[in-house]
Amino acid sequence: MPLRPTLLALALLSSAACALAAAPAVPYRSPQQILDASKPGDWRTLDPANTLYLDLDAGRVVIELAPAFAPQHVGNIRTLAHEHFWDGLSIYRSQDNFVVQFGDPDGEEADKAKPLGSAKRHLPAEFQRDAKGLAFQALPDRDGWAPQVGFVDGFPAARDPKDGTAWLAHCYGTLGAGRNNDEDSSIGAELYVVTGQSPRQLDRNITVVGRVVKGMELLSVIPRGPDPMGFYAKPEQRTPIRAIKLASDLPAAERTPLQLLRTDTQTFRDVAEARRNRRDDFYKRPAGHIDLCNVPLPVRTPPQ
Amino acid sequence: MPLRPTLLALALLSSAACALAAAPAVPYRSPQQILDASKPGDWRTLDPANTLYLDLDAGRVVIELAPAFAPQHVGNIRTLAHEHFWDGLSIYRSQDNFVVQFGDPDGEEADKAKPLGSAKRHLPAEFQRDAKGLAFQALPDRDGWAPQVGFVDGFPAARDPKDGTAWLAHCYGTLGAGRNNDEDSSIGAELYVVTGQSPRQLDRNITVVGRVVKGMELLSVIPRGPDPMGFYAKPEQRTPIRAIKLASDLPAAERTPLQLLRTDTQTFRDVAEARRNRRDDFYKRPAGHIDLCNVPLPVRTPPQ
Repeated sequence: MPLRPTLLALALLSSAACALAAAPAVPYRSPQQILDASKPGDWRTLDPANTLYLDLDAGRVVIELAPAFAPQHVGNIRTLAHEHFWDGLSIYRSQDNFVVQFGDPDGEEADKAKPLGSAKRHLPAEFQRDAKGLAFQALPDRDGWAPQVGFVDGFPAARDPKDGTAWLAHCYGTLGAGRNNDEDSSIGAELYVVTGQSPRQLDRNITVVGRVVKGMELLSVIPRGPDPMGFYAKPEQRTPIRAIKLASDLPAAERTPLQLLRTDTQTFRDVAEARRNRRDDFYKRPAGHIDLCNVPLPVRTPPQ
Repeated sequence: MPLRPTLLALALLSSAACALAAAPAVPYRSPQQILDASKPGDWRTLDPANTLYLDLDAGRVVIELAPAFAPQHVGNIRTLAHEHFWDGLSIYRSQDNFVVQFGDPDGEEADKAKPLGSAKRHLPAEFQRDAKGLAFQALPDRDGWAPQVGFVDGFPAARDPKDGTAWLAHCYGTLGAGRNNDEDSSIGAELYVVTGQSPRQLDRNITVVGRVVKGMELLSVIPRGPDPMGFYAKPEQRTPIRAIKLASDLPAAERTPLQLLRTDTQTFRDVAEARRNRRDDFYKRPAGHIDLCNVPLPVRTPPQ
């Protein structure tokens, strides 16, 4: 019978090294093999004070906040979550290959807007910060958008050695604070998550407040709204938000335990390299490169 | 009342130039303003012989085939469509931030596979081609994956001036031919469309046969299958394919008329530049760069 092609081999979990490839000094290990051999200290547990649960009918989206880059926005988001601001609100925008956006769809209408409680009504823009004091793990790979890219505490980031600033990058799963035209018009009540090709042009133009670490597949399938921006025409098309909660406001039994691979470990560097140069049975030509937003950020349920 | 932030201004259709930005020599025009001022000759009409309709219950996905890069695969795909190979088959894989894959889910099982009709059972790999004879519109932007990137007849592409080869790039919407481990194991019967962050590591590792020009929002929302690869566990989870048809096999009245902006025009270069350096009321810092897979490829219904 004829061979029937499939993408079965287009695996994230590819098997042995390709015998025909130029022999590398060390035998190739797949990303999964590298993770399987990781040590407990390669992983860190999410800090409940920096963890947000976006609970939808379809399930829970877990978000890690980034107080090191946006301390004032994260402070306001903690307050809003603590006071149940988002509970009963909705995801009211889904633009294909770009973002979903959520919060109060009536927030612009003075007579209908949900009260902000004790959250601050004005915050400074937090587009970037001093790179000093940050443990920045630079990638060797070149980037078109920034002089240097890498990771800070697990967050995809960039920095400019000339002016000494650093900022978080817009990748798949990045959580940002929506704003109007004024750069200091965001307070963290209206949020968006990137669901499309990394819109890096937003870097240093919006305050990035965190990123999704689990549950992107619940956001990425939300039906798209109409062109050009994906705001739904009818309220019933919106996706209801059951609640957004700070993990530290919940008893331990109601939290979702997760560990993230530390980006300052050799294991992480090995995973990135195994993706940069794939030497398995499927790939015929290792890329020799990886873009910042293509580097996987491994997440796991803590082993019992 | 306090200002309520939204992403309203995060518009694709942004308005006037920002008065506070460093004044450019020419007033800024948004991509939409540039398109509104385009000439009829800036657009080309899809060739029905190179146009594939993927008809789902949710609607029609329109695909442009790339015979200049994959003549043998495109020939086989025309045969398969003409003989209704895909009608009644399904999208049987959806992996978050990667691909949807479709064709015959039983194609690997000799006793259950749908007959291939008069399609060829074996084709050579068509990963790349001689760059000679191609009108390659290079972008000035640097790229990590290839020495040079740009467009050929509207397709995002790359080339290597050293060895004189060119190839199609994996961006959002790219259509590729699934294969097994052997590089010549694809025949175009099993296909995938990129729905996630551009997986450029697949460039020159798989035969790219075309790209989606309309209807991505129907593919991008298809529920994800289970980790790690997104193949559904149950047949009823698959998305049925009503039919895949070649436009030239249909009477004119059943075709979807579309025009694409020609990538060899000043209008296209102006749109790319308007995205590379946004100088509107929203953006505070033009990126000065655009990645190949972030360049929009404008599509329109022909004006009456």
